[in-house]
Amino acid sequence: MVFDCAIIGAGPAGLSAALTLKNHGKNVIWFGSKTLSDKVRKAEMITNYPGLANVTGGQLAAAFTAQIEAAGLEITDCMATSVIPMGARYAVIAGPDFYETETVILAVGAAQTRTLPRENEFLGRGVSYCATCDGGLYRGKTVAVICGNPRFEHEVRYLAGLAAKVWFLPTYKTDVSLGENVTLLKKGVTGLLGEARVTGLTLSDGETLAADGLFCLRDAVAPGTLCAGLEMTNGHIGVDRAQKTSLPRIFAAGDCTGRPYQYAKAVGEGNVAAHGVLEALGK
Amino acid sequence: MVFDCAIIGAGPAGLSAALTLKNHGKNVIWFGSKTLSDKVRKAEMITNYPGLANVTGGQLAAAFTAQIEAAGLEITDCMATSVIPMGARYAVIAGPDFYETETVILAVGAAQTRTLPRENEFLGRGVSYCATCDGGLYRGKTVAVICGNPRFEHEVRYLAGLAAKVWFLPTYKTDVSLGENVTLLKKGVTGLLGEARVTGLTLSDGETLAADGLFCLRDAVAPGTLCAGLEMTNGHIGVDRAQKTSLPRIFAAGDCTGRPYQYAKAVGEGNVAAHGVLEALGK
Repeated sequence: MVFDCAIIGAGPAGLSAALTLKNHGKNVIWFGSKTLSDKVRKAEMITNYPGLANVTGGQLAAAFTAQIEAAGLEITDCMATSVIPMGARYAVIAGPDFYETETVILAVGAAQTRTLPRENEFLGRGVSYCATCDGGLYRGKTVAVICGNPRFEHEVRYLAGLAAKVWFLPTYKTDVSLGENVTLLKKGVTGLLGEARVTGLTLSDGETLAADGLFCLRDAVAPGTLCAGLEMTNGHIGVDRAQKTSLPRIFAAGDCTGRPYQYAKAVGEGNVAAHGVLEALGK
Repeated sequence: MVFDCAIIGAGPAGLSAALTLKNHGKNVIWFGSKTLSDKVRKAEMITNYPGLANVTGGQLAAAFTAQIEAAGLEITDCMATSVIPMGARYAVIAGPDFYETETVILAVGAAQTRTLPRENEFLGRGVSYCATCDGGLYRGKTVAVICGNPRFEHEVRYLAGLAAKVWFLPTYKTDVSLGENVTLLKKGVTGLLGEARVTGLTLSDGETLAADGLFCLRDAVAPGTLCAGLEMTNGHIGVDRAQKTSLPRIFAAGDCTGRPYQYAKAVGEGNVAAHGVLEALGK
């Protein structure tokens, strides 16, 4: 099965694109968190979104969820880790699965644009974004996990069931205990060690940590890692007025394309990107 | 009094800009119809606006109106007919009044981009956009009125009270009678006649009509007429990703900048334009 479009990201930009493509009867695969964007849910009060006066982030997320259900849309709650050109199409890798699509809309948000030095270099050689996919490679070994969101803690537990030792490095405040062989470290990761493969990490306090692998469990993969060759502008995905990126049939919308980081801008760009997809599909 | 920003147009783009600037405590003058955009009110069903599932245009307009009131915003129900550079600022002419502003956001919609041949040439020499302002010049004379919206019919009645004869040329279907000296013509206007001043019109059936003046009562003045020197691209106002036009401190948003003609796009661009204004104001 070939999808008309893969939308990556379930914030307001992804939603706007999904609604528009659904209206046009397109066959869409939509990746993101079923709980929608954390940034939306956590907003205290939104006072400048036309049509909804003074809503909390929770209310907006509830309105979005109801609308997604009413429209018959589904979110595939799986992180897209790679978008690979395949002739005139693309393949999106998400978890252990593979999806073929004519077009792609990147709506991955602003927070996920940073990677560690050498992270791209070690991808597939000790660095992984998917515990389910690659956990089996580390049976009886030592792994480190950068965990960007409590909703990935179940993946840390999964790794703890396979690996001999897990270094747990959350990017949020927590004292959670995830297993006997899991050690919580309240430190940042500053770099990767190794030659052909990862052998360890450097930490924010200057210490080093030996590890056979590093899992980066973030809300989204950095766009430049997700799509090799994607041109970035000042840390954001470069797009034109039609939300086209530097790669053919790949569009981007929302915070990942730059400021202002606003709901209205995000839904506008998602809509325009969807129309770009319709044009690219020749319909 | 100098305004921080003049917003011209009360559709979704103008509203989005107004809400955002109001949030930032800016002093805004907002021109448009208090009944909001006709295009919004008349929409049958809007199925892809994030946050409001399957609303009619009437419902969306009602939500907008409630939000405008709750935000303490006011629409100046007066057509802006000219934006004139005044040193580092602009003057907006609307009806008989004059407003000084640091910045301008054009959100005038898509429908109003066409003018008659020679319309600009005859502006102030027989062509007028404002019955209240210029009606007095035609006492006892003959005027023609192109009327773009029934809400301007009271202006036709006003002219009928001054002029000897009024040719009423609505651009919509109607059989309304507006006065004994008003003749309804179900014909289009194709051009203007005259040398130094207007002396008549040419009509879609090839006939000509003698008239001392022509009033064009449209929902908005064409952008290129409104702002001399504004660069247009394929019949739309040319803007960059920041919604900047070719003129300093003048931004544009919504349908007037091009397709897709969508609510989501309009609110997104209005928001971005407002942020451009904030940056231009240095705050």
